[in-house]
Formats: sequence, C-alpha cells, structure tokens
Amino acid sequence: MPPKRIYLAGPEVFLRNAREIGEQKKARCKEHGFEGVFPLDNEVEVNGKSAREIGLCISGVNEDLIKTCDVVIANLTPFRGPSADVGTAYEIGFAHALGKLVFAYTNVSAPFTERTVKTLGGKVSWGGDGKLRDTQGMFIEEVELTDNLMLEGCIHASSKQLVVEDAPAGELFTYLGGFEKCLKLVQETVKI
Amino acid sequence: MPPKRIYLAGPEVFLRNAREIGEQKKARCKEHGFEGVFPLDNEVEVNGKSAREIGLCISGVNEDLIKTCDVVIANLTPFRGPSADVGTAYEIGFAHALGKLVFAYTNVSAPFTERTVKTLGGKVSWGGDGKLRDTQGMFIEEVELTDNLMLEGCIHASSKQLVVEDAPAGELFTYLGGFEKCLKLVQETVKI
Repeated sequence: MPPKRIYLAGPEVFLRNAREIGEQKKARCKEHGFEGVFPLDNEVEVNGKSAREIGLCISGVNEDLIKTCDVVIANLTPFRGPSADVGTAYEIGFAHALGKLVFAYTNVSAPFTERTVKTLGGKVSWGGDGKLRDTQGMFIEEVELTDNLMLEGCIHASSKQLVVEDAPAGELFTYLGGFEKCLKLVQETVKI
Repeated sequence: MPPKRIYLAGPEVFLRNAREIGEQKKARCKEHGFEGVFPLDNEVEVNGKSAREIGLCISGVNEDLIKTCDVVIANLTPFRGPSADVGTAYEIGFAHALGKLVFAYTNVSAPFTERTVKTLGGKVSWGGDGKLRDTQGMFIEEVELTDNLMLEGCIHASSKQLVVEDAPAGELFTYLGGFEKCLKLVQETVKI
C-alpha cells in the first residue's frame, strides 16, 4: 500500500526559503512513514499569464493536491493579525468537508483573546452585556479557544487535539516541534 | 419547490446588533426569492457547558447549517488585519468542497497589497528577488487579487465575480450594497 499522503498547509509558503522548509517537512513525513505534499510541489504554467491569472491557477492546483491527500497538517500560527493565515483556514475547511483528517499546530501559545487585544492596540472595552468589544462594538472571543471557533471546532471534530507550542525566538514560522508532534498524532490515528 | 437556501457567512456575527443585521440580510434574501440562513439561527444548548464547549458546539452547528444550504454569500470585508475573517474563510472552503455555489463581497476597495503594508506599519522592503517582503522575510502578495489567492480562487471558480464596494463611513460591517449585488448575481445564476 502506498504511504498515506499529508498535505502541508501553512503560511510558510510566504517564506523566502519556502521550498527548503517544504523539503524539511516532507523529509520528516518520510521518517514517519508518510508522503508529504507541499503547496508549491505542483508547478503552475506561467507563460503568457498575468499575475492575477497565475494566482487563480495556484488556488485550483492546491485544491487538487488536497483532494489527493488523506490527511492535512495545518500550521495555524497567527499570521499578520491575531488569527491563522486565511488561506490555511480555507484549506482546512475544504479538507474537512471532504472527510480528510485534519491535524494542526501553532507556534504561539499566547491566548487568542490576548493576541486580539494586542492587535487592536489595547483599544477594547467591556460592553454593558459584559462582553469584551473593540472600538466598532465588535465582540472579542473569550471562549478559551486557540483561534476562531470554526478552526478549533474543525480540529476538535477531526483529529481531537490542536498542538500548541512556543517557537524559539526567530523561528516563528520555521520551528517544527509542533509539526513533529502532529506527525506522531497522525501515526497514532492512521494505519500506515 | 422550496426557495433556495443561502448561508450568510461573515464577521457580522461579532456585531453588538448581530441578530438585527442577520434579520436584515434574511429580509433581503426573501425579497429576492431566497431563504437566508444566519449562523446564529440555530440555538446552541448552553446549560452545563463551558465557554469552550459552547464554542466547539457552534462550529458543528454552523457546518450543519451550511450543508442544508444551496448557496453561500460571504462577507470578505477585512477583519482585524489585511484579510477576511478566518471563520468566514474556513466556511467558504467547507462550502466549496461540498459543491455549494459561493458568492462573496467586500466593503473595502483598497488593494490587498496596500492593506497588508498598512497592517505591517509600512515595515516592508523589496528583497533581492524583487518581491515585497515583511521584516520576517515573508512575501507580500502583489497578484492584483482582493485577498489571499485561495479565497478569490474559490469565488472565481464558483460564482466568477467578487463584488467590491466601499462602505459609507461608519458602516464597514453593516453596509449591504455589495450584499444586494451578490443577491442579484445569485438570481442570475440560480433558478428560483
């Protein structure tokens, strides 16, 4: 039987050394008996296409890659705001609907509420209803979840446990400790 | 034949008057011959549950609501950062994988690259590869898309057109002009 295929979702595609990190993750997958699939694995034909057209092509290519996989491991480390990368959020929604097993980790242990308040520059207040709100009156989640409830709800329903670690300084998007823990969880869950 | 059901995804669930906005959107749906379904429509049993347990329940309830719908109209207005709400991103990924028709609008016309640079406080620079990067060396998308390519790719593949408008001052998350345009697009696409 071919090894189970794991789609490696996360914002590391934006790193300068994205392909190198992708290769590192794929090597770890192989050590654990799996085949890692990185979003940049499939080349997109760029000749004659505008930047916009290439972007739209990559989206379809990534969805097709997810369809070929059995499992997703998502890096939900907060990206340019209090929450995970929206592309990664989209991909785990897509995968979960298709019945793929979705595992996830984050390299930031600070609570979601604390991260949101920090992003808002501390400009928050308690409303008359006792809820913490921003300057537009919008509710700030205080439900002791790691991120938006749709994301953690997915992981809870699918693979049960979201791995939370703190990356060493300077390794926010490259630290693979939480990713390794996910691989061990996959091993415990999926027959290789 | 019962009216087509439209799931109303978006960050307005965080508004103080979320239910009121939900009712407004549902009324507009009805005027166009559809049945609107708002994420807060299904009550979650809260007795004896922790805040965390309630959050996880809401996630499953929302996914079940999406499954009952034919169409999603998503509000992709940037939320606490340069991109759409991650919960909404998750939901359109989930819906698209299930073959639901996904329409979307945003109430902010400023380009994604400009919004990202603003979020980063202008701390960006062009790398040796000619790509715009943040202080961690992470690439800033410049592909002339409205948001992360997975989101716009979904809309492009599904309903073809992402509606971009600018909300009047003070109505960032309550303005329904773009939403109305989506309803008209649904009418043109779906047999009522």
